[in-house]
Amino acid sequence: MAVTPRIQPTGGSPVVPTRGALRPLGLGEANLVGGFWGTRQQVNSESTIDHHRAWLDKLGWTGHFVEAANHSRRGREFTDSEVYKIMEAMAWDAGRTGDQDRDADLVELIGMIGAAQAEDGYLNTAFGGPGQRPRYSDFTQGHELYCAGHLLQAAVAHARTSAESELLTIARRVADHVCDTFGPTGRSSICGHPEIEAGLVELARVTGEQRYLDQAVLFVDRRGYRTLPEQEFGWPYFQDDMPVREATVLRGHAVRALYLSAGVVDVAVETGDTALLEAVAAQYDRALARRTYLTGGMGSRHADEAFGEDFVLPADRVYSETCAGVASIMLAWRLLLATGEPRYADVIERTLYNVVATSIGDDGRSFFYANTLHQRERGEPVPVDRERLHFAAGVRAPWFEVSCCLGNMARLFASLSTYMATVDDGGVRIHQYANAVVRTQLDDGRRVGLRVQTDYPETGTVRVRVTETPGGPWALALRVPAWAPGARLDGEVVEPGVAVVRKDFAPGDEVLLELPVGPRWTFPDSRIDAVRGCVAVERGPVVLCAEAAGDEPDNLDDLTVDVTVPPVDTEDGVTVPGRFRKLAEGGWPYTEDEQDSESEGPAQVRLVPYHRWARRGPSTMRVWLPRG
Amino acid sequence: MAVTPRIQPTGGSPVVPTRGALRPLGLGEANLVGGFWGTRQQVNSESTIDHHRAWLDKLGWTGHFVEAANHSRRGREFTDSEVYKIMEAMAWDAGRTGDQDRDADLVELIGMIGAAQAEDGYLNTAFGGPGQRPRYSDFTQGHELYCAGHLLQAAVAHARTSAESELLTIARRVADHVCDTFGPTGRSSICGHPEIEAGLVELARVTGEQRYLDQAVLFVDRRGYRTLPEQEFGWPYFQDDMPVREATVLRGHAVRALYLSAGVVDVAVETGDTALLEAVAAQYDRALARRTYLTGGMGSRHADEAFGEDFVLPADRVYSETCAGVASIMLAWRLLLATGEPRYADVIERTLYNVVATSIGDDGRSFFYANTLHQRERGEPVPVDRERLHFAAGVRAPWFEVSCCLGNMARLFASLSTYMATVDDGGVRIHQYANAVVRTQLDDGRRVGLRVQTDYPETGTVRVRVTETPGGPWALALRVPAWAPGARLDGEVVEPGVAVVRKDFAPGDEVLLELPVGPRWTFPDSRIDAVRGCVAVERGPVVLCAEAAGDEPDNLDDLTVDVTVPPVDTEDGVTVPGRFRKLAEGGWPYTEDEQDSESEGPAQVRLVPYHRWARRGPSTMRVWLPRG
Repeated sequence: MAVTPRIQPTGGSPVVPTRGALRPLGLGEANLVGGFWGTRQQVNSESTIDHHRAWLDKLGWTGHFVEAANHSRRGREFTDSEVYKIMEAMAWDAGRTGDQDRDADLVELIGMIGAAQAEDGYLNTAFGGPGQRPRYSDFTQGHELYCAGHLLQAAVAHARTSAESELLTIARRVADHVCDTFGPTGRSSICGHPEIEAGLVELARVTGEQRYLDQAVLFVDRRGYRTLPEQEFGWPYFQDDMPVREATVLRGHAVRALYLSAGVVDVAVETGDTALLEAVAAQYDRALARRTYLTGGMGSRHADEAFGEDFVLPADRVYSETCAGVASIMLAWRLLLATGEPRYADVIERTLYNVVATSIGDDGRSFFYANTLHQRERGEPVPVDRERLHFAAGVRAPWFEVSCCLGNMARLFASLSTYMATVDDGGVRIHQYANAVVRTQLDDGRRVGLRVQTDYPETGTVRVRVTETPGGPWALALRVPAWAPGARLDGEVVEPGVAVVRKDFAPGDEVLLELPVGPRWTFPDSRIDAVRGCVAVERGPVVLCAEAAGDEPDNLDDLTVDVTVPPVDTEDGVTVPGRFRKLAEGGWPYTEDEQDSESEGPAQVRLVPYHRWARRGPSTMRVWLPRG
Repeated sequence: MAVTPRIQPTGGSPVVPTRGALRPLGLGEANLVGGFWGTRQQVNSESTIDHHRAWLDKLGWTGHFVEAANHSRRGREFTDSEVYKIMEAMAWDAGRTGDQDRDADLVELIGMIGAAQAEDGYLNTAFGGPGQRPRYSDFTQGHELYCAGHLLQAAVAHARTSAESELLTIARRVADHVCDTFGPTGRSSICGHPEIEAGLVELARVTGEQRYLDQAVLFVDRRGYRTLPEQEFGWPYFQDDMPVREATVLRGHAVRALYLSAGVVDVAVETGDTALLEAVAAQYDRALARRTYLTGGMGSRHADEAFGEDFVLPADRVYSETCAGVASIMLAWRLLLATGEPRYADVIERTLYNVVATSIGDDGRSFFYANTLHQRERGEPVPVDRERLHFAAGVRAPWFEVSCCLGNMARLFASLSTYMATVDDGGVRIHQYANAVVRTQLDDGRRVGLRVQTDYPETGTVRVRVTETPGGPWALALRVPAWAPGARLDGEVVEPGVAVVRKDFAPGDEVLLELPVGPRWTFPDSRIDAVRGCVAVERGPVVLCAEAAGDEPDNLDDLTVDVTVPPVDTEDGVTVPGRFRKLAEGGWPYTEDEQDSESEGPAQVRLVPYHRWARRGPSTMRVWLPRG
């Protein structure tokens, strides 16, 4: 059986391919130490995971497993997956921190869900019980295999972070049931929401069980023949409109498209199917070029949570679901590991700073589901004990009827250090800049240690100190983001891409990367109609925005900026030169003559990081600024 | 009892207020004779109504009434209303044409629905039967009172066009049941979808029954206190967020908002409640100034079929539901009758030419549900025997699972001539220009006749000949659209608004109105972000668009136009000077430098009326043209 990791990582990580350009590090090999991301990971550990557990219990979603046979369910069909996602987060967190209480909590949950598993391995609290719909009676929205996929991922996390895992046993029984039911001689069905594919491949990687990989291949190959029942949004909604190999762009429900693509990369890597890998990479590339927001956010439509057509990217009511951001990182990470192309790490960085960091409150207990780029009216605050039926406009909420995004962030934060660096046959590559300690072994078995020190993205100075090296040359590679022409490595200008220092390092050696993080204007492709005549400001990897909160005037509709003068860093943040027009109340808004408007005198408009918006109470906000 | 029409109209019309600035004409007083609208009315009569009846039978929606007690329903909760709307259309059509077969069809349907009415007057095939949910158990989406409202409107149409009407008897029993159930001492509820309000007032107008008016007042007064259960889209969705008198703009589900407003005007007029009338007029004015598309279309959001915030009017995926267009005409017409302000007739004209005329195929058997202003990808044709589950992108479909828009157009077309002219204490006013014959009596009882001859909007020449006049002076008033500065009446320039010729007319006298219908650039308010840097072209009341169909290249994303040169009428339609940019395939679409793009040489870009788009097979299209 081919699916065995070439080097068993230390401490585990979410994706461990058998082959590929780069090898991911485990939680024991890369650690965040404070700073932008370390702080967030700590909040996740100390606050968010408990917040989840409390809500899952309060809403009865954990209870479903105990009372599987005789209760009336609360919540949507896929609440089981929310429990599994937080179990995954707990596994990474316990693996990272060694927290015994967390591990005990997780073991308790494992016992709970194990007791709900049927004799034949089936495990889902929404189907098949008394008074419930039969198993596998709703592939469109039933989410049964989706839930199973999340269970598999949680089990993989536990197996990679624990000496033994009863969850792995449960997951194997689930996977065996899935293979028995949907295997080559079973039902020729697919799940409306992809997720099982990636779960099966990862379980194959952990267990060495070829059958799980084969089943994932089957699910991928079956998709695209319109075998799912038609529904309101058509077959593209769940990517059943055309076979994966024939599609040229991501389409339909964004999270479904991205989860599917992540699973397809896993399948392609494990089966050595280069054509399949290239197909999904091309779809993602086209989506990045034509269907992605400046933040890295994906999916512009509310109605079907879907990608729009090429260049349909209005800033108003951007959907950019948090889950789609996490899923895009999942996909980009897999492609990065497979290909080594640094532009995928650029996407991860952009999405982390501008979708993920935006989506969660500083307390780790409030969340955006949708991430708009333009808020015209101030939202209403949501009480901390109140779940939202769907998304809240412009305010973070403590919980949602559909809470997928929350669990996704929790499991990402819990494993975040594993996305920072990789090992390859040349040495170590650093992808994301954060205060971190890396201790790993090179492909040839030599142990190396690094300490990364930076206050990036506040400044662009990144120091990498070699703390351990066995002698003999190896390569320290550093990503230079595409937005950073003019970057310097030890004083020499380096091109965007990957800058490499290969030498016989000694302990204490330092490499200095200087990235030009100063604010800059960013112009949109002229085909993005909705932001024509507008400009944005970015600072390093961070998208900025204008915001009016508290007693600041709500005049962002009236703002224009002057792009002939560059934006500047000041004591008070970034400022750009602008004016506020005096706009008439007005009647019919379409006129034969172009409307002239007087302006107030010139103003210095202060911008803040987009990920900081809506943290001072309800506010109005815009990322794209009309040009004067 | 106050609600008796001051003059009984001849032939009936949809709205007959007791008081107001203008008196509507009945179907016997105003007739369309060919031309733009007469042709469409004829198609409605000869094709569309039969198309409806066939689909209603095929889908079993008429059958629900026969088998009310013992069948399994098909379709949504509100299919009864689709039957009622087509009955209303049949009543107007039979009243207009005197077609005995149509009348017989209608009488057959009346018998069918009458048999399904319960002893206590309740009539709805979706609730209260065996295996069905109880009556009035779902005010949010049950649509029971909404269906009743459409039944009342159908009965009013029949009562106004027939010597006797069994449908009126059925409707009175329904209305009595509603008053018994929801009256001052009954359940203090409202329907999630307004419609009953206007139906009750019209029934009061026909029957003189004060109780029906009082019940409408009650429903209006009860709304806005969040008594409906919360759902995904919040209380604004069904206008239960704040009392009607306190709201400042239309919001939430566009059709619900507009139906409610129409009923509120009816209530305000009949009760003499000036403050209430002014409140709803102000809400509509603000919606027109900030929440309306160039076409007059309303409602930009797909997810909740709702108005967006002020100036959120992206051209892509415009919802602009056909029903909202019809409902906006219903509201504007009521406000026109109440106030006499010609700008409401401007809105009706704009919406007729650019929403209603767009929404229906030339054969009267295919329809748009949503009316986008920008189509980026060609849609897939819909087979003529196939209903759509929801809206179809860029192609007209023969039927929809939710077919509200279709019935709304049928009833509007069947009564369309009644929107053309009115009588007031000065004489006759013509609001819409179409080949028509008007024969009516003035307020003082004198009979007058007019013949309107025009090929408007192709040209702007409108001749009004007096065919009958009793002697003595009276006023012939003609609307001059707001877009038509420079219009001439008998050679003299007249201002937009109302131009009046008051004199002692003789038979054969002619008045000549010349409207400058040549093409013109139209610029959007700078706060409509989504079309910043774009311009549209209008020609008279008609919005134009660029379209690529058949073997024309799909290059509308690359188009820019030059606004320094005016658009011109040519043999081949309207052309504007433009260029097609050569756009790179491109990677990440947000760049530090403004993207330069080469252009092809200058081109004359042909534009077509927006209402003609998608008639040559699937096409791409855009109304808003980027400026070069």
